[in-house]
Amino acid sequence: MKVVKFGGSSLATGAQFQKVLDIITADNDRRVVVVSAPGKRFDGDIKVTDLLKTYADQTIAGAYTDEIMTTILARYQEIAQHFSLEDNKIILQIKQQLVHLNRVHYPSFNHLYAAFMGHGELLNAQLLAAIMQEKGMPASFVSPAELGLTVTGSPRAARLDPESYHAINQYQFDDTSLLIVPGFIAYTNDGYAATFSRGGSDITGAILARGLQADLYENFTDVSAIYSANPKIVSHPQPISKMTYREMRELSYAGFAVFHDEAIIPVIEANIPINVKNTNDPQAPGTMIMPNHEIDSENPVTGIANDNRFAALYLHRYLLNREVGFTLKILQILATYNVSYEHMPSGIDDMTIIFDKAQLTPEIKAHISHDLYAIIAPDELDWLDDYAIIMIVGEGMQQHIGTFSKITSSLAEAGINLPMINQGASQISTMIGVPVDRMNEAVRVIYNAVF
Amino acid sequence: MKVVKFGGSSLATGAQFQKVLDIITADNDRRVVVVSAPGKRFDGDIKVTDLLKTYADQTIAGAYTDEIMTTILARYQEIAQHFSLEDNKIILQIKQQLVHLNRVHYPSFNHLYAAFMGHGELLNAQLLAAIMQEKGMPASFVSPAELGLTVTGSPRAARLDPESYHAINQYQFDDTSLLIVPGFIAYTNDGYAATFSRGGSDITGAILARGLQADLYENFTDVSAIYSANPKIVSHPQPISKMTYREMRELSYAGFAVFHDEAIIPVIEANIPINVKNTNDPQAPGTMIMPNHEIDSENPVTGIANDNRFAALYLHRYLLNREVGFTLKILQILATYNVSYEHMPSGIDDMTIIFDKAQLTPEIKAHISHDLYAIIAPDELDWLDDYAIIMIVGEGMQQHIGTFSKITSSLAEAGINLPMINQGASQISTMIGVPVDRMNEAVRVIYNAVF
Repeated sequence: MKVVKFGGSSLATGAQFQKVLDIITADNDRRVVVVSAPGKRFDGDIKVTDLLKTYADQTIAGAYTDEIMTTILARYQEIAQHFSLEDNKIILQIKQQLVHLNRVHYPSFNHLYAAFMGHGELLNAQLLAAIMQEKGMPASFVSPAELGLTVTGSPRAARLDPESYHAINQYQFDDTSLLIVPGFIAYTNDGYAATFSRGGSDITGAILARGLQADLYENFTDVSAIYSANPKIVSHPQPISKMTYREMRELSYAGFAVFHDEAIIPVIEANIPINVKNTNDPQAPGTMIMPNHEIDSENPVTGIANDNRFAALYLHRYLLNREVGFTLKILQILATYNVSYEHMPSGIDDMTIIFDKAQLTPEIKAHISHDLYAIIAPDELDWLDDYAIIMIVGEGMQQHIGTFSKITSSLAEAGINLPMINQGASQISTMIGVPVDRMNEAVRVIYNAVF
Repeated sequence: MKVVKFGGSSLATGAQFQKVLDIITADNDRRVVVVSAPGKRFDGDIKVTDLLKTYADQTIAGAYTDEIMTTILARYQEIAQHFSLEDNKIILQIKQQLVHLNRVHYPSFNHLYAAFMGHGELLNAQLLAAIMQEKGMPASFVSPAELGLTVTGSPRAARLDPESYHAINQYQFDDTSLLIVPGFIAYTNDGYAATFSRGGSDITGAILARGLQADLYENFTDVSAIYSANPKIVSHPQPISKMTYREMRELSYAGFAVFHDEAIIPVIEANIPINVKNTNDPQAPGTMIMPNHEIDSENPVTGIANDNRFAALYLHRYLLNREVGFTLKILQILATYNVSYEHMPSGIDDMTIIFDKAQLTPEIKAHISHDLYAIIAPDELDWLDDYAIIMIVGEGMQQHIGTFSKITSSLAEAGINLPMINQGASQISTMIGVPVDRMNEAVRVIYNAVF
């Protein structure tokens, strides 16, 4: 049995819906379908989830909401029309639910936002189920609550109630039926709507795949594969046919927008493979993400990711290394300002601390510098804002001695300096730091060296 | 003005004393001479300091001590004889002081050991001064206390009283005189003898060089230079003519037995250059260790050091990196068992912790593993005992892009895997980890690639 999730671009128009219907029909194992809200139909279009946010804003402001509601409804009508269902009762139901949204009392603004924004998925799942029923398919809309999926925590950053897996596993699954489930939205035990963090349809799909013990979690999106490098940097990079969970995690850390990490924890815990596929090219094999795969000895590198969201702090003091507990002191200073670090490579009396740049305001940097001077008294303290990280990832890299030297010699030939190299902590990747203005060039040089 | 220190092998025999006299005479700037105890005359010989330790042991045990005392005295007599001074009053003085040692009351065994063992240097300085006076040189023995050098702390691990620098600087220095000062031994304010940690003659010399504002600190030993790699591994490695303090520190961290780090802090703080020279080959320029030197663009690498005193612990847990504060938890576990770490390179969800192997008993490892499983719950936890570190050090390395790629490609050609590479934290070196059984081979490969 396969749990299949379709992203927003796969469900943005009637024509896209038709592709989804064809995909579901083509494989009898596709039995649980997790649905996103309608996404952008064209560049510059607005996603239904964002329209719903505006609707929520206006509701809170006590503004006139008829217009935005009509805009939202029109998106669903347009899809229904493609299937000549514009007069079907589903459209009336959708309208009633949209109207109802701003007539209810919510315990907090966060509850209100969660309910409004989660309706993008909810209504889209209802619409898909109605279309399939109209075509005689044994599809039924099922709410996450009916399946046993309940959440706790903040309404807009819901966390799965761990009891859910047991409940989902108990769900009476009819062998001939097709379940259409909204992603993103879920309910607390006292019946309030809540949403996972953005991109949360992936989470719903992963939870259901694990709870229902699926053989495969298919994630349909709008690319035919995950590519071995950013196509905006490297032209026509090789698609990745297979990768391990760990490779995926390392690549997405450094800029591969594959999944939110959280999203796939449930399937990883259950060792269920994930197949990333393209709704617009369903014959393409896509990318399999799995617990293990055979190492391709021809090509030990799986992918090259890059990210310029980092900044670094360099510290040096003679005999620093002999001072027991200095790392602890540094971590305590960072904790004072609620700053977490990413990596901390150390030399003999040197230390480079790598941060996510987003955390560092000029003020926080000044405070940290001040405290470090007071407590550690470094001979040198430099903030390096110009810091990009390139991750070269592959389960086979440790076994292939020559790969790393190919990379460094090609970078040297291109005249690109490497202010940081970190290999060995992670056994499947090498992390290198480069100046931001050489990042794209370095990615191309590395790509050409290893692929 | 130069402060000159002679090591134990430079003062082991009368013939060696003659070389020392010639060196002092050859340069009028050599005005303060710091003296070690007589060292080994041949392989298997016993240093006077070790004889004195036996003398102390026997004194504490209440054993018969005439024999060991005679053995010690014979070492000084042998030297005196070389200069036909066997009947000089200095020998009687040395004998009286040796006898006196075990007739005094000491506040503790540590005070006793410090007094006994420090006499190796004390008596040797007196002997050298007497020989020079006999030859008509204006030399006088000066006790560290007379110079203003006082210490505090434990008798066998004395620390300099920071007031000393001021006191030493006030010392009335006669332009024509030559001061002969014992290394290693010093006195507390209440007059008790104390010693620096072993190798402490270097410390005495460095303190005097700083206190007297010397232009140069000459350190005479038994090698003509510091070599760019271990001569036991690489045959006839290049001598290093110049290196910076930082290069020296990084090389000695990873196995270069140049100085005890502590020993040269005083001269580093005062920016006084150090010249390591050979008593047996005083014409050789030796190695200059200085605050800065011009980078040789032909050869950006200064030296290659290697050490197999390390062990590593590898940890992996999916999403470890997202858990704020996990490093703190790990450091707290290590602190519980009083274990300090050397380096902690981190991957995405991985961390390698590198330790000095000497700290790790099987029992401590078991405790640390137990606590890590309980608190961090890693998916993987591996102890890697087979871990050697090679440091490639050079102030010019950052500017010379190709150096690193030369190293990695030559190692790859030799089929040597690199489980760890850490570059960038220290701006003047690259640290690589290799399996212990490939260490020597890797050093040779790197040496041939860069020299």
